[in-house]
Amino acid sequence: MRILILNPNTTSSVTDLLVAAAKAAAAPTTEIVASTARRGVPYISTRGEAQIGGAIAMETLAENHAAVDAAVVAAFGDPGLFAMRELFEIPVVGMSEAAMLTSCMLGQRFGIVTFAAALGSWYRDCVEMHGLWGRCAGIRSLEESFGTLSAVQSEKEEALVELANTSATIDQADVVILAGAPLAGLATRVRERVPVPLVDPIAAAVKQAEAIVALKPRKPTAGTFRRPVAKPTIGLSEALAARIEMRDEPKMI
Amino acid sequence: MRILILNPNTTSSVTDLLVAAAKAAAAPTTEIVASTARRGVPYISTRGEAQIGGAIAMETLAENHAAVDAAVVAAFGDPGLFAMRELFEIPVVGMSEAAMLTSCMLGQRFGIVTFAAALGSWYRDCVEMHGLWGRCAGIRSLEESFGTLSAVQSEKEEALVELANTSATIDQADVVILAGAPLAGLATRVRERVPVPLVDPIAAAVKQAEAIVALKPRKPTAGTFRRPVAKPTIGLSEALAARIEMRDEPKMI
Amino acid sequence: MRILILNPNTTSSVTDLLVAAAKAAAAPTTEIVASTARRGVPYISTRGEAQIGGAIAMETLAENHAAVDAAVVAAFGDPGLFAMRELFEIPVVGMSEAAMLTSCMLGQRFGIVTFAAALGSWYRDCVEMHGLWGRCAGIRSLEESFGTLSAVQSEKEEALVELANTSATIDQADVVILAGAPLAGLATRVRERVPVPLVDPIAAAVKQAEAIVALKPRKPTAGTFRRPVAKPTIGLSEALAARIEMRDEPKMI
Amino acid sequence: MRILILNPNTTSSVTDLLVAAAKAAAAPTTEIVASTARRGVPYISTRGEAQIGGAIAMETLAENHAAVDAAVVAAFGDPGLFAMRELFEIPVVGMSEAAMLTSCMLGQRFGIVTFAAALGSWYRDCVEMHGLWGRCAGIRSLEESFGTLSAVQSEKEEALVELANTSATIDQADVVILAGAPLAGLATRVRERVPVPLVDPIAAAVKQAEAIVALKPRKPTAGTFRRPVAKPTIGLSEALAARIEMRDEPKMI
Amino acid sequence: MRILILNPNTTSSVTDLLVAAAKAAAAPTTEIVASTARRGVPYISTRGEAQIGGAIAMETLAENHAAVDAAVVAAFGDPGLFAMRELFEIPVVGMSEAAMLTSCMLGQRFGIVTFAAALGSWYRDCVEMHGLWGRCAGIRSLEESFGTLSAVQSEKEEALVELANTSATIDQADVVILAGAPLAGLATRVRERVPVPLVDPIAAAVKQAEAIVALKPRKPTAGTFRRPVAKPTIGLSEALAARIEMRDEPKMI
Amino acid sequence: MRILILNPNTTSSVTDLLVAAAKAAAAPTTEIVASTARRGVPYISTRGEAQIGGAIAMETLAENHAAVDAAVVAAFGDPGLFAMRELFEIPVVGMSEAAMLTSCMLGQRFGIVTFAAALGSWYRDCVEMHGLWGRCAGIRSLEESFGTLSAVQSEKEEALVELANTSATIDQADVVILAGAPLAGLATRVRERVPVPLVDPIAAAVKQAEAIVALKPRKPTAGTFRRPVAKPTIGLSEALAARIEMRDEPKMI
Repeated sequence: MRILILNPNTTSSVTDLLVAAAKAAAAPTTEIVASTARRGVPYISTRGEAQIGGAIAMETLAENHAAVDAAVVAAFGDPGLFAMRELFEIPVVGMSEAAMLTSCMLGQRFGIVTFAAALGSWYRDCVEMHGLWGRCAGIRSLEESFGTLSAVQSEKEEALVELANTSATIDQADVVILAGAPLAGLATRVRERVPVPLVDPIAAAVKQAEAIVALKPRKPTAGTFRRPVAKPTIGLSEALAARIEMRDEPKMI
Repeated sequence: MRILILNPNTTSSVTDLLVAAAKAAAAPTTEIVASTARRGVPYISTRGEAQIGGAIAMETLAENHAAVDAAVVAAFGDPGLFAMRELFEIPVVGMSEAAMLTSCMLGQRFGIVTFAAALGSWYRDCVEMHGLWGRCAGIRSLEESFGTLSAVQSEKEEALVELANTSATIDQADVVILAGAPLAGLATRVRERVPVPLVDPIAAAVKQAEAIVALKPRKPTAGTFRRPVAKPTIGLSEALAARIEMRDEPKMI
Repeated sequence: MRILILNPNTTSSVTDLLVAAAKAAAAPTTEIVASTARRGVPYISTRGEAQIGGAIAMETLAENHAAVDAAVVAAFGDPGLFAMRELFEIPVVGMSEAAMLTSCMLGQRFGIVTFAAALGSWYRDCVEMHGLWGRCAGIRSLEESFGTLSAVQSEKEEALVELANTSATIDQADVVILAGAPLAGLATRVRERVPVPLVDPIAAAVKQAEAIVALKPRKPTAGTFRRPVAKPTIGLSEALAARIEMRDEPKMI
Repeated sequence: MRILILNPNTTSSVTDLLVAAAKAAAAPTTEIVASTARRGVPYISTRGEAQIGGAIAMETLAENHAAVDAAVVAAFGDPGLFAMRELFEIPVVGMSEAAMLTSCMLGQRFGIVTFAAALGSWYRDCVEMHGLWGRCAGIRSLEESFGTLSAVQSEKEEALVELANTSATIDQADVVILAGAPLAGLATRVRERVPVPLVDPIAAAVKQAEAIVALKPRKPTAGTFRRPVAKPTIGLSEALAARIEMRDEPKMI
Repeated sequence: MRILILNPNTTSSVTDLLVAAAKAAAAPTTEIVASTARRGVPYISTRGEAQIGGAIAMETLAENHAAVDAAVVAAFGDPGLFAMRELFEIPVVGMSEAAMLTSCMLGQRFGIVTFAAALGSWYRDCVEMHGLWGRCAGIRSLEESFGTLSAVQSEKEEALVELANTSATIDQADVVILAGAPLAGLATRVRERVPVPLVDPIAAAVKQAEAIVALKPRKPTAGTFRRPVAKPTIGLSEALAARIEMRDEPKMI
Repeated sequence: MRILILNPNTTSSVTDLLVAAAKAAAAPTTEIVASTARRGVPYISTRGEAQIGGAIAMETLAENHAAVDAAVVAAFGDPGLFAMRELFEIPVVGMSEAAMLTSCMLGQRFGIVTFAAALGSWYRDCVEMHGLWGRCAGIRSLEESFGTLSAVQSEKEEALVELANTSATIDQADVVILAGAPLAGLATRVRERVPVPLVDPIAAAVKQAEAIVALKPRKPTAGTFRRPVAKPTIGLSEALAARIEMRDEPKMI
């Protein structure tokens, strides 16, 4: 099967990190393909950027969905996830969603650790959006600034490991999510230095996408996740417009 | 003061309805101005359309915010609301948010009545996004189809009044919200035919925007609603890019 | 319009503070009138005092409601609020309720800061009574004693500002409520010294009362907020008895 | 031990019903004494009446607490319960509270059945006040009118039994509370006609009051349930004023 | 009446502690009998031990239920409680459940203090199982190791009192539960050294069992707490098999 | 990899159904092995049977865990799941848990449909145990009796399909879980007759077990899911005793 890593950020070095971690997690029969947003910001880290990035991810998926079996939204907060789940036939899995749901099978409460200073409040909104706040032990972020996005995981490795340990001991997290696309792959490397399981969101998302594809769920034809009826559009990207106006071919699932 | 009614739909007849209801509710000293989305769909009624519409509303507000004192997001589900609250200095109020918060002062639990068939599940997501599900008595929608958007409130007046009565008696709603931009103004007209208060979201939003402007809250300089630091962008509308890149003038509040 | 500031405390200097802050917030066309409780305690700060104070507020409102367009319950915890909302035709708004609902439009989570030592637990009950605990970032109170009620806001200004800063940074409150009638007016004065918006409950309540009056909601004739049917009473104040026994004139709304 | 049944209603025939059911439930060593409110309304069934009735119950308890070991607030909604728990040294138990907590030991979810038409919404507020909505299977009320309060339980016996059966089968209540002081004693009489346990609030409250007294909990000297510090009062009943002003003797517990 | 203290642990010295505290709390007419698990572990302190211990408690109760009027499950976390409530006619009360529900009548929020290091997370699961997390102020455990189970309460008395004080002051607990069978009796001894009421779970459970027996609730014949229909079994203890296969006598309640 | 289907029921024909559905879902490189409980009841359908069945599942897993890479608890309600997750090094996944978490990636709210009459209340407890009640649209069960367990899915196919349709249309479930081991395989067969995705719990559990094994989470060495310290035991099965007493070899993960 072919899984699309849909990076809604414009930074291709982050896409590279994601692809490497995705390939390491994927089954031998899974092909990983990726897209980097052509529009938007280098790295989504605010509500506004997520609003824009989610809409851009929809454009990208409209261009690519016919060629893949599933897509992974590869930014924290799962921008555009529910929108794409509704609009397309293929399964779409969010990196944050996959990390949290996977964590639920490894303990009662998960902690979230990230490098982005002072985003705790928005992260909590994201957990609540998925109805999983009751399963969350807490959110901890590095407060210090860092150099480049793609190097943050090595630059801050010590501090992130310490934060994960704090999440396990003080917050009593049974499992810790290392959140944020630039941390892709870190969980494997520091696995032995934290006394509870670590979850790498991109790895979890790939396994969840594989699982969903294998289960062959039908596309709904009723309810709010059915494909919406055709509507005219103005000023959208051609592929996205074609999908919303139903000028494209529906995909058989 | 000047309040911008930000219609993220492309249908100008709906904007007209909204403006009429907004003017009827506004204080004599309030000037109502409005924008209709230049891009997007005629009427947002799915998660995907809200994702896109919210991003388009950001573009529109980036062009207009300097000339107004507050903005009202004028579509159900408040597309882009939190994004705009974060990115701009002026107060931004959501029509759904305003309707629900206003309702909280008129009783314990509000019902929501709308004309859009089978959107109940998504509407519930919207209520939960605001943390107000515990104050919601239930959501009821017309199941029948209708003619044009701008005439739906007169075409379906009888059925909508009946639904509001059901919300009050069966669901025990203490107050009923008539939701959806095309119903703007209906609440006033049928006020005497439902035994509990009716809330018109656009009217509520105008009054709430007036209230917030009058209270002169400062723009946060800390936390997740401060204006984000400048970031490079690619391919965004000029005004939105200027704002995110901080090439524009910050607005003094 | 005429709004009654209903102080359920017996301290007229607190009423004066409230009236000053109310007038500063009111629209030019709004007339602020006030009442100080003739019975009760100087300052409600316990559950028992709120039980009594709420009943006394009902007596006062029974005497005055016919002459005003709305009433504001001007003590933390909104004593008697739901009772008066049910018994009278005019809108009744609680100071705490108004502060919290207004805050919801300024961020995701509000903090509450107050001067009254060790009331946190009861304050939490009040937030939960309104179903808004999920929107609350935390409650912080001064632990030190103070001189007079009416001077507490100047005497403790430094400490209160510091507490509000802690609420914003440590609790990640997006907006901070300065709670308690004796703090009326403080938010405006220290606005620039806290990096997130401050909400003054009496100012918020006046704006919300103005908004509700302008929206002209009907008095329910069904549900639990309709005016109750006439009942005999024994030993109540004359005006309150007349209202409950329906010997008075119903007010047209 | 001596337990005071504190009827905040002015109807002595309801007190008689309560006392009979209380005596039937009490241990041989328990003496049941009762008071009927001298002020107020015949039967509390609205928020406003509960606000007033709770304050009146405080007056009555201030006169009687020294002579008893515990008090039971004998009206649905537990008017004044938390206020009295705070102000007095003796344990105070609410009839609704006791019914719900007792029910929690007889199954996962309790239903509430009552005779009072259309009070469901207020009843839900009461369950939520105790944080027990998650344990509640639903609330059902008779819609028909009835003759006298003291005879309602025999007049409507058939309908109430049917409602209790509906609560068990449709709402899947594991246990059903027959709520409202005028139903005191009914649960015992119809025990065999409903397939799940029935709880009589006054009986539950007497047993809970006996249990609490036997456990000899200390009166808090810290936190929000300690006895408040002395405050001046104006215009309150002599006994209540003496308690709040601390002119009376503290009771040793 | 006769109440069975069902210790699902194999340590008879803990049973002795429990019996002593139970007798001190019981009414003169209550006979306390006890059983110590013949199989299992010395002291249940993990999820796995609770799973096994609950099943063993069922075996023990199958042997003894006919001779008693009620049973108390005497280990934290109430292992097997709902299973036994369903399978047997007599009331079965959990020690943790009883402690929490009793605490609800002594304040708004209870704290839990225990001697077992690092079990906070599992304790929280137990509180949530009863739907009472909203009434819980927090859980605090000693972190240090201790000597023998039966002597832990004297060895760690100082530290436990300090922890209870912290629960009252920092966590704002209105009442504190001293949790864990080995602490039976401690609450009485240190009553004056903590400023809020202390609840001893075994004492609370005995009083609650007495209350339930006195109320004579019927055994459900519908719903999920009715006695299940007969089923064949393989390899269970003789008494438990007889009960599940309905080869024993049903008990009249 | 090798996954153990741990059937805590004694009915081998149900194990056969489960194995067939598990093999159909498994990856080519996954070997499915199974165990049928040697002790217990034919089919767990009550809280008591789940308590016993969970303890028996622990015995079986103690005998088999060394030879497999993961285990699936194959009965509704996940009996013994958390206990085994704690006690063993290999991943243990519950069939209900896996079905619910997988469903979360296919829509906002899942419905549960089952054949077992009148178990709704207990099913709700199971959903709440996983903290997912907010994601559940409702639970619906057949009310009619049926012939044999292993044939129930063909005998009741029509009725179950109708119930799934009701869940989608009336309850607005975005996805429907066909719950209960005897329905294994049904979802695939009736896939086209319900307009929303159907989830087969055993298939979901196999995919989730494969995903977790592939992610190689470490066994915690801290927190409440670490392997408990050695404890003496009495009267447990040899393999389970050896594990709890730590006389067996720890498994390297």
